[in-house]
Amino acid sequence: MKAYKKLKNLITNKNNYLTVGLDTDINKLPTHFPKNLNSLFEFNKAIIDATKDIAIAFKINFAFYEEYGSKGYEVIEKTIDYIPDSLFTIADAKRGDIGNTSRSYAKAIFEKMNFDSITVSPYMGEDSIAPFLEFKDKITFILCLTSNSGSNDFQKLISDEQTIYKHILKTSLTWGNPENVGFVVGATHPEQFREIRSIAKDSVLLIPGVGAQGGSAPDIIKANKKAPALINSSRGIIYASNKEDFAIKAKEKAKELAKTIYHNE
Amino acid sequence: MKAYKKLKNLITNKNNYLTVGLDTDINKLPTHFPKNLNSLFEFNKAIIDATKDIAIAFKINFAFYEEYGSKGYEVIEKTIDYIPDSLFTIADAKRGDIGNTSRSYAKAIFEKMNFDSITVSPYMGEDSIAPFLEFKDKITFILCLTSNSGSNDFQKLISDEQTIYKHILKTSLTWGNPENVGFVVGATHPEQFREIRSIAKDSVLLIPGVGAQGGSAPDIIKANKKAPALINSSRGIIYASNKEDFAIKAKEKAKELAKTIYHNE
Repeated sequence: MKAYKKLKNLITNKNNYLTVGLDTDINKLPTHFPKNLNSLFEFNKAIIDATKDIAIAFKINFAFYEEYGSKGYEVIEKTIDYIPDSLFTIADAKRGDIGNTSRSYAKAIFEKMNFDSITVSPYMGEDSIAPFLEFKDKITFILCLTSNSGSNDFQKLISDEQTIYKHILKTSLTWGNPENVGFVVGATHPEQFREIRSIAKDSVLLIPGVGAQGGSAPDIIKANKKAPALINSSRGIIYASNKEDFAIKAKEKAKELAKTIYHNE
Repeated sequence: MKAYKKLKNLITNKNNYLTVGLDTDINKLPTHFPKNLNSLFEFNKAIIDATKDIAIAFKINFAFYEEYGSKGYEVIEKTIDYIPDSLFTIADAKRGDIGNTSRSYAKAIFEKMNFDSITVSPYMGEDSIAPFLEFKDKITFILCLTSNSGSNDFQKLISDEQTIYKHILKTSLTWGNPENVGFVVGATHPEQFREIRSIAKDSVLLIPGVGAQGGSAPDIIKANKKAPALINSSRGIIYASNKEDFAIKAKEKAKELAKTIYHNE
């Protein structure tokens, strides 16, 4: 099944957009975990088990695992294998390079690990994104307007009366179709979010920045107009408790957030 | 020693800017190599041995190894360990994410693997680059004007009478100093190269695009004005022959190219 269709079904059936971000950091694990790579995987397993009936998706932040080299990369592989196939998966890796190089990244994420989607950086233009879009059943999330303070540095520069992120949005929509071109749009920009949604009506928007980063869930739900989206929360859920009850608390937090980011009334 | 100083010494002593790009692809190895990951490492070893007395640097293109998952990542680790410490090393990984995530990428490249430098994407702005620049003895190469056709899509848009890549160049120079902020500038844009060099007078420029991609070495040498630079050739050297003489041929090609990219007359 196309990743797009799988995601739409999940949103309808579970009635929320909740994506759990596995930004798992050895130094933030509950105190009873020994500080080693096996704990990284055991923690992920417990979080997945606790939240898989609520959330629609899991996002793996590659940096947190690459920090430990090939052994950390192995934890990514074990984690993606552990996530049930029925849920949507995101390789949050921010890749992008010249064509023949991007092709290798696309194979790593879509063939070798079978993720449903990836995040990519648009700076190098069409030939850096095209190899990802050749995987028509997957979704490629192009960075558009990110949630961090650095989004003010270049993304909002104006060229020909429109921001750079809008150039990227409009141009990259022509490279594929709404079912395989998605965008990363931070929850920290509710006004711009509305405008982006009005241009990319049917594309999936991957939305970080709710919670720890300050974005408001109700504002985003209103601006999203029931279109396909993924609203990510990482730290707010996975580090809800640093005691043995961490999984129970993560589930409670996931339920709480899921209620505020409903699809139907 | 600072990576910047190490590089300047190498350029002076070896009298060239030659960087060998280890874009090693299992399907392009000489025909006598079995098609497996061990061959990837054995091939790299042979290329390093054959060219280390000529080249000043080796650049590892992460995508070609990540294509094979954690086992491929292991080949990166073995390769970087095999490169003599006296040579300059580049993690060509095009990373970049929000601050706490970029910090993990920086640790992976600079602490865990001890590369001298990394390539990063500037789209997410200052806080996405700052964690790399905290490693003051390393060099962070920010994508400026890339060698591929997609560089025409967004990098050359004009805002406030200057191109986006020039905004990035000028702004990011203020985030660090010429000894730790470098730029990726493709050899396929000789005119713009001259202008970039006039702004970033002392920064190291990492220059892909000579050879297979069509950039002219003499034009770049002239425009570079003897400032610190790394001129990369990947396919032209490593795939000089697909027979058992591949290492000898790679050495010949490296020597040939090194002569055209001399530092002193």
